[in-house]
Amino acid sequence: MLHEHRLFPAEGAARSVAAKLYETVKDLPIISPHGHTDPQWFAENKPFPNPTALFLQPDHYIFRMLYSQGIPLESLGVPQGGAKGDPAAAGQVDPREAWRIFAKNYFLFRGTPTRIWLDYAFSTLFGLTERLGPGNADEYYEIIAAKLNTPEFLPRALFDRFKIEVLATTDAAVDDLKWHQQIKDSGWGGRVLPTFRPDAVIDAEYLGFQENIQKLGEIAGEDVATYKGYLNALRKRRAFFKSMGATATDHGHLTALTADLSETDASNLYARIYSGKTQPGDVELFQAQMLTEMAGMSVEDGLTMQLHPGSVRNHNLKVYEKFGRDKGADIPSPTEYVRSLRPLLSKYGNEPNFTMILFTLDETTYSRELAPLAGHYPCLRLGPSWWFHDSPEGMMRFREQATETAGFYNTVGFNDDTRAFLSIPARHDVARRVDSAFLGRLVAEHRLDEDEAFELIQDLTVNLVRKAYRL
Amino acid sequence: MLHEHRLFPAEGAARSVAAKLYETVKDLPIISPHGHTDPQWFAENKPFPNPTALFLQPDHYIFRMLYSQGIPLESLGVPQGGAKGDPAAAGQVDPREAWRIFAKNYFLFRGTPTRIWLDYAFSTLFGLTERLGPGNADEYYEIIAAKLNTPEFLPRALFDRFKIEVLATTDAAVDDLKWHQQIKDSGWGGRVLPTFRPDAVIDAEYLGFQENIQKLGEIAGEDVATYKGYLNALRKRRAFFKSMGATATDHGHLTALTADLSETDASNLYARIYSGKTQPGDVELFQAQMLTEMAGMSVEDGLTMQLHPGSVRNHNLKVYEKFGRDKGADIPSPTEYVRSLRPLLSKYGNEPNFTMILFTLDETTYSRELAPLAGHYPCLRLGPSWWFHDSPEGMMRFREQATETAGFYNTVGFNDDTRAFLSIPARHDVARRVDSAFLGRLVAEHRLDEDEAFELIQDLTVNLVRKAYRL
Amino acid sequence: MLHEHRLFPAEGAARSVAAKLYETVKDLPIISPHGHTDPQWFAENKPFPNPTALFLQPDHYIFRMLYSQGIPLESLGVPQGGAKGDPAAAGQVDPREAWRIFAKNYFLFRGTPTRIWLDYAFSTLFGLTERLGPGNADEYYEIIAAKLNTPEFLPRALFDRFKIEVLATTDAAVDDLKWHQQIKDSGWGGRVLPTFRPDAVIDAEYLGFQENIQKLGEIAGEDVATYKGYLNALRKRRAFFKSMGATATDHGHLTALTADLSETDASNLYARIYSGKTQPGDVELFQAQMLTEMAGMSVEDGLTMQLHPGSVRNHNLKVYEKFGRDKGADIPSPTEYVRSLRPLLSKYGNEPNFTMILFTLDETTYSRELAPLAGHYPCLRLGPSWWFHDSPEGMMRFREQATETAGFYNTVGFNDDTRAFLSIPARHDVARRVDSAFLGRLVAEHRLDEDEAFELIQDLTVNLVRKAYRL
Repeated sequence: MLHEHRLFPAEGAARSVAAKLYETVKDLPIISPHGHTDPQWFAENKPFPNPTALFLQPDHYIFRMLYSQGIPLESLGVPQGGAKGDPAAAGQVDPREAWRIFAKNYFLFRGTPTRIWLDYAFSTLFGLTERLGPGNADEYYEIIAAKLNTPEFLPRALFDRFKIEVLATTDAAVDDLKWHQQIKDSGWGGRVLPTFRPDAVIDAEYLGFQENIQKLGEIAGEDVATYKGYLNALRKRRAFFKSMGATATDHGHLTALTADLSETDASNLYARIYSGKTQPGDVELFQAQMLTEMAGMSVEDGLTMQLHPGSVRNHNLKVYEKFGRDKGADIPSPTEYVRSLRPLLSKYGNEPNFTMILFTLDETTYSRELAPLAGHYPCLRLGPSWWFHDSPEGMMRFREQATETAGFYNTVGFNDDTRAFLSIPARHDVARRVDSAFLGRLVAEHRLDEDEAFELIQDLTVNLVRKAYRL
Repeated sequence: MLHEHRLFPAEGAARSVAAKLYETVKDLPIISPHGHTDPQWFAENKPFPNPTALFLQPDHYIFRMLYSQGIPLESLGVPQGGAKGDPAAAGQVDPREAWRIFAKNYFLFRGTPTRIWLDYAFSTLFGLTERLGPGNADEYYEIIAAKLNTPEFLPRALFDRFKIEVLATTDAAVDDLKWHQQIKDSGWGGRVLPTFRPDAVIDAEYLGFQENIQKLGEIAGEDVATYKGYLNALRKRRAFFKSMGATATDHGHLTALTADLSETDASNLYARIYSGKTQPGDVELFQAQMLTEMAGMSVEDGLTMQLHPGSVRNHNLKVYEKFGRDKGADIPSPTEYVRSLRPLLSKYGNEPNFTMILFTLDETTYSRELAPLAGHYPCLRLGPSWWFHDSPEGMMRFREQATETAGFYNTVGFNDDTRAFLSIPARHDVARRVDSAFLGRLVAEHRLDEDEAFELIQDLTVNLVRKAYRL
Repeated sequence: MLHEHRLFPAEGAARSVAAKLYETVKDLPIISPHGHTDPQWFAENKPFPNPTALFLQPDHYIFRMLYSQGIPLESLGVPQGGAKGDPAAAGQVDPREAWRIFAKNYFLFRGTPTRIWLDYAFSTLFGLTERLGPGNADEYYEIIAAKLNTPEFLPRALFDRFKIEVLATTDAAVDDLKWHQQIKDSGWGGRVLPTFRPDAVIDAEYLGFQENIQKLGEIAGEDVATYKGYLNALRKRRAFFKSMGATATDHGHLTALTADLSETDASNLYARIYSGKTQPGDVELFQAQMLTEMAGMSVEDGLTMQLHPGSVRNHNLKVYEKFGRDKGADIPSPTEYVRSLRPLLSKYGNEPNFTMILFTLDETTYSRELAPLAGHYPCLRLGPSWWFHDSPEGMMRFREQATETAGFYNTVGFNDDTRAFLSIPARHDVARRVDSAFLGRLVAEHRLDEDEAFELIQDLTVNLVRKAYRL
């Protein structure tokens, strides 16, 4: 099922150079500076419940594709976390039945990265080397279910087996990080770090925003009725996250808009946000202002800042109402960076102690905006091809479109960005293969010396990520 | 002139797999669910007049290129259908002379799909295997002209020879479909179906809009002075088209904007449109509202809905005034789908009995908007690379950019979308070759098993189109 | 360091055809119709001062990359031409020290075109075949410095050695062209032509705009207080440039917007611009109007018109304030052509004696807007992939995305667009190689006959550029 030369160029010198390069990085540790795994797994170290709960129900990459072909999410036992959902419904679905639906429709994933990741996990972890399909659905289920109950498949054992050097989670600004504390206290050597993600206390349209900032104030012991208190509360939370090992912040905004308001204007804006008496544009402007404030705090405390704009969240209202957030209905839209980032970059773009990593879902910005920006501003680095573009073709387009202007050294290696724990080694493996393939082609076309390619594949796999995230 | 391995990867495993895949589909019937051939041809079955009238004068792909290099459209006998045109002018041009101009400038088409289609038709239909040029222009003309007068080159004979299983035309909402009726009555077995295209009664800026809706009301026996009557008239016309074999509707809009107005607002908007007393934005809003209404009718009657936005029509005013519509001066522009389609999708996007096929002229939307939308909404499918992008590179970009997110099964096979009847087999042949090439590369890079590729090439050639268009 | 088959496809038939094609054009003369070399070099024919002053300090491709990695521009001796700069600072930097910084960071250019150009110059001109790095920085410096003082490395000797048939510079509308006159008077045979670039007298936000138009009036002997006088002044300057050998004009605008105002509206607009009492939108509208006026003058005098829109200039304010314009902080942004160019094209788009060459920094427009426009309008031609996209991948994307719709014959060959004189042969060599690679692939995929490819590579290298620029 897994050919040793998969994802390399199909022929000749490019293929053989790629294979040699990959050989030198395939066994390197995994550095995962940005993702969405659950720290509770590693704190409690309990077995994963069953194949369906592990692979299918939490992975919107999988069930969105099944849904797009008319398969009801209810039949898969996708948790109904929305306002109109039935929390008990998922539990009423026989996980084995859901798995059969999945297996029967496994052909839908042909040509997708999901297929590559799943085949990798099935094969390397469970020894399943016959392609999943309706005929072997039950066999798959039983083999996986059995293994999940063995000590080798507990979260920490897998973490070690995957050779994860460091794994960053994503955590709300008001999170008490108790699972992270429990991991620390446990004496286990795995390095699981939090990441400071304040969207829920910055985006005034976020569900529960008003409660969130109240909670922020309480936790931090600051009066969030004033802008100053609010900023102080954030500053304290950042310090707390940093004390718990965090090296980065993460910001998911609808656009890349930034602003640099006067103190008075910013205070007044916050007063309107705080009171809920906003004027048109206030919500977006406040997010814009806060990106610049967050950049300023990064200059102070050295946390690397990540910005992920461009996703229209919860596009399908009916799915959102029943199933809640993160159900595969987040759709990218055109994203502008050049004018949007100017206020922030004018203020902090030349600061030596500041690193800001930009991601995009709009590939047209690679060559037009992102590479030229990162190829100039000292603070900027480009995140890897992200989300829908975390795929062989997507990664290759990123390298082809960004490298000539930004070079390799304004990029930061790979992010898996996943909540699917078992897909982590597969995702990093794909990235290492595609980078090897890209470098192999450059060498075969005599655009890069071979000794440089060997150095670069190390940099792309471990060195750049360590540096950018200060790990 | 035609190498048997043309359009395949140049080397190695990818090439040989592509060749094997292609072998299994090259002789399959042609399913053409979307095009612009003239049903009168098949109703009357008269010979095509001459090579110039057949190949050159109706094909804006050809004469736009000649015009771009300074060759007057008048010299080619392009019909002067515009307000300032001279209807008699085309007839005064010696078709043989026009053909010589074409032949002398045939080199302009190097690297274009037009060249591939023409070489295919010249070679496979007329046995002309020496490349067209100034030296053999007259020979070409005579050989083609002679064959056009033989029974083997009558429209129906060619239809059969091309192995066309079904051919859909595009027809105005007020069309009486008399040619389709005549085909039905003739006893000939060729399946030529109409497609319901209501642009001329929905776009208030369409030439003759007011007369068009009056005519619509008369034909349908409804009072189009009211919104309800107008909608009923459309509903009846759809039913008539369906009774004549139609399985789909087609909508060519400037943008993908949709709306979901209240009944009162929609009625009032229609009243302004009907009276001609529109406010700014009304024309676009009415089109937006009507897309949602059409979607609702598709949910009722099961006609597959096609949407083709993004072309700025008749960009060159001087050419438009003299020569009229469809003269090669339609220029694509940036097209937004995510916010635009939300009203329609919120209302009907999760309906099980609804299929909506999206096309684009803006390739940036493949990976950013269209694949994520189609990879989630059950109703959505992606049409093939369209118009300017109906080309080897264009098709390959579509597969490379859409597949990883939408998969293959949210696409619908190939559309030729042509009024150039003789190019139909060539166009389908190109699509089959490029799909074989793409799959061949996936297999050679070990991203897809070979048995899956053989299944997929069948799906891409005949199965997906049959399903999406309910044929 | 330079493999003879570099930049060709890595394998097989495509590679061998590419090599054969390249062989037929590698020694053809260089035609450079658009660039930024300094005519003073060829007028005075003095030695270039030192390696750092030649390669590093004037080349924003190089120092922007170093800056992006935190290396201060001050340490490189980049001239401080901004309002807050210190004009003497550059002179205080030891050029040898700056060169060492460059050498130590040469690895940053891996995968960039800059690296290809530099290796080419180092190797072919200075016999340096070991890759630049910290270990050989001084050796490089000394060898280059020594050669720069020999007669073979004087500007005119290099011009001849590079086989430059014609080299166009870019010159302000108010330039007296004295260096061009001095070249003419010198009896030297090198053909160095001016290009008319009126941005500084058209863009009312250009530094010193008011003084510039006063100067324009004085030089031309026209009263620029009136629109008529202003236009006459421009007309006279164009005539003067033409008398000095110019065959083209060049226009760098923020957008591609054009306008076609009535005489009265245009006069009134100019009056506001002239008086400095502008209304919002006036500056952009005036630029838009002037593009159309310039097109009209091109119809009169036959100068080829070039339009380069889409760069947000001087994005980094701190760098701009200290170092001035053109310091690597110009960032592309999305650019619209279809609606923007319509006023100009409606007026002059069908004129037989008019050539307008369009460039872009927004690659999304190649297939969506530019190729369809150029594939229709007789006046339009597409400039080569430009600036950040003057690179192997960039050139290949241009051919892949533009050719199928615009064909080859609506393009104009290569522009080097450089102020880095020694990079000129390298840049043209890259273009010839990439075009050979593209054609080689088309032949290997049987999409083009080999004899056509040989004809095309000549056209792309010398014929199309001569025709488009009337050289």
